[in-house]
Amino acid sequence: MKGVILGINPSVSLVDVSHQIAPQDVMEAAFVLRSAAETFPEGTVHLAVVDPGVGTIRKPIALRFQNQFFVGPDNGLFSLLLSGSKPDMLVELTEPRFWRTPHPSPTFHGRDVFAPVAAHLSKGLTLNAAGKPLESLKTMHWALPISDERGVQGWVIHIDQFGNCITNITRAHIHGFKKDRSFKCYAGNAIINKMTDTYANSDEGDATLLVNSSDFVEIAIHKGSAAQMLDIRKGTPVNLVFSDEKGS
Amino acid sequence: MKGVILGINPSVSLVDVSHQIAPQDVMEAAFVLRSAAETFPEGTVHLAVVDPGVGTIRKPIALRFQNQFFVGPDNGLFSLLLSGSKPDMLVELTEPRFWRTPHPSPTFHGRDVFAPVAAHLSKGLTLNAAGKPLESLKTMHWALPISDERGVQGWVIHIDQFGNCITNITRAHIHGFKKDRSFKCYAGNAIINKMTDTYANSDEGDATLLVNSSDFVEIAIHKGSAAQMLDIRKGTPVNLVFSDEKGS
Amino acid sequence: MKGVILGINPSVSLVDVSHQIAPQDVMEAAFVLRSAAETFPEGTVHLAVVDPGVGTIRKPIALRFQNQFFVGPDNGLFSLLLSGSKPDMLVELTEPRFWRTPHPSPTFHGRDVFAPVAAHLSKGLTLNAAGKPLESLKTMHWALPISDERGVQGWVIHIDQFGNCITNITRAHIHGFKKDRSFKCYAGNAIINKMTDTYANSDEGDATLLVNSSDFVEIAIHKGSAAQMLDIRKGTPVNLVFSDEKGS
Repeated sequence: MKGVILGINPSVSLVDVSHQIAPQDVMEAAFVLRSAAETFPEGTVHLAVVDPGVGTIRKPIALRFQNQFFVGPDNGLFSLLLSGSKPDMLVELTEPRFWRTPHPSPTFHGRDVFAPVAAHLSKGLTLNAAGKPLESLKTMHWALPISDERGVQGWVIHIDQFGNCITNITRAHIHGFKKDRSFKCYAGNAIINKMTDTYANSDEGDATLLVNSSDFVEIAIHKGSAAQMLDIRKGTPVNLVFSDEKGS
Repeated sequence: MKGVILGINPSVSLVDVSHQIAPQDVMEAAFVLRSAAETFPEGTVHLAVVDPGVGTIRKPIALRFQNQFFVGPDNGLFSLLLSGSKPDMLVELTEPRFWRTPHPSPTFHGRDVFAPVAAHLSKGLTLNAAGKPLESLKTMHWALPISDERGVQGWVIHIDQFGNCITNITRAHIHGFKKDRSFKCYAGNAIINKMTDTYANSDEGDATLLVNSSDFVEIAIHKGSAAQMLDIRKGTPVNLVFSDEKGS
Repeated sequence: MKGVILGINPSVSLVDVSHQIAPQDVMEAAFVLRSAAETFPEGTVHLAVVDPGVGTIRKPIALRFQNQFFVGPDNGLFSLLLSGSKPDMLVELTEPRFWRTPHPSPTFHGRDVFAPVAAHLSKGLTLNAAGKPLESLKTMHWALPISDERGVQGWVIHIDQFGNCITNITRAHIHGFKKDRSFKCYAGNAIINKMTDTYANSDEGDATLLVNSSDFVEIAIHKGSAAQMLDIRKGTPVNLVFSDEKGS
């Protein structure tokens, strides 16, 4: 894909965001894409390919959102990024003259469709020229955490390289609860009742909650792997229950 | 190596093709190099170092082929790329003034010889200036599949990150057989009798053959790892036998 | 971090040196940083973040050394690079106007402090403007090997992807011993008495010592993993004892 891109736009600046997405894990890719997009400058073209349906009828699409461009398959990959908003512009890629070949390999649209379109966008191609407008794109069934006056129930959506477990519970979900209320968080084999600002503010080996740099609640162990020590995987439920007492 | 290259040509565009080649696996590197080269633009300088014989008498070489440049050890790394053709130009690297030092580290020619020569080539150095012409380069014993009127026998040369098993059997090898003839493919613990165009066109968990985007036959399982589920590794024989009956 | 950097300096050339440092392993990062720095050109800005104490009182710093810049946490990461020398200039990062936000995330100074400062340095920001001068920086307790007239005792500080075991014993430590004296090296489950110039100069499967391209003594097995076969890990002691006899 990089060879194709540089063949079209030799002066483009290529950045690898991640090659670590588990095979076919569209949900994890959607999470990483959202986190990455918020730090990149306006005009960036994001090429995202986690594409278990390559070669079938899922549409190849491109869109503009918050002055960045996104290219990839219409399989829900962009749901978290948009999180309910509409893209400023959305097209289905229907113009083979911007592809590597009019007959793309049925197993590698990344190389033959998405990469060349992304390269042309980086050179000024407009979305209107790249395809025909679409009304809507596929929204992945990405269940939001369930919350009521007692607490929030969500689950783990990503494990980072340190073993920190990122949940789909955000700062906004817990904002409603009084800051000093005590709580119990059930996850894996542990009950956690501590929240800290940063990893090093808990004792080594101690499990803690914190709101991370992307505003998601995560479960961490200072100088240890929370995933391993608490037996947590992607998909593990996380149950946060607030009591009426004040925390210590 | 990148530090050395940028010190010589600060405006070069660096692309990592792969750091995942198994140690000393020249054959796998040759496969990846061939696949990568076909997508990169003219003038690209490819630096390839899988070099179990570093510091011994294997020659450091550079060559031009299809308007791209290649730099690395003469140990068979370029055999698949050339697949029988002669390079347009071939030299042994004999000019230390284009190296990092006239006395390269015996364990790291990548840093001290290949990287600086590649950087100079990207700035316009000619092969003639970089070394002295060589008649021929080492051709790896890369056994081609054996085929007769009944079928083809090859083996697995690469397992990708999804567990798909790429064989050394190409589209050309099976082209001769009538499209609708049924077949049996023996590989690992499985007998496969289905060929599809793309991964998602078979049922989940079903093994299938397909011709991939580089024209090699591969064994795949939709949403599963063929390598793991069929007990296939690099080197596993793959036996494709066509019958006289029509396939279903 | 790359998104933040490119937002400030779109024309910068980004190079990933390593994402393979074990979590919290400041000592391994210090080793890789030192090896990398010596090959990069003058003016390079090195951004290094292995930061178990992020969000606590360890200082964010930047320094100039041998005409390169270094940005990261003051936790010992730069000790090996400097190895006793003083940096030419050293500042604590105290100017939030060069940060991504005046209130950096307590868990991600890489994105909010170090990356933006590095990007500004690459555009010509001076250290004086980025912060206020510091007298000294934290020197990691990086025990040097112990040596006497009989030999040297050190330990393994890094295992590379081939399983070669790099020790903290350098060429200088063994330089004092006559070249042809025989020796015994105790490490893991092996006693090694051979030193070679390059990997391929020993028999397959044979353990050997060699001085590598960064002048460190390493334990290697030609076409095998020394770490695995000799049961060596990071931290394993390495005992090099010279005898009075001549080696063979």
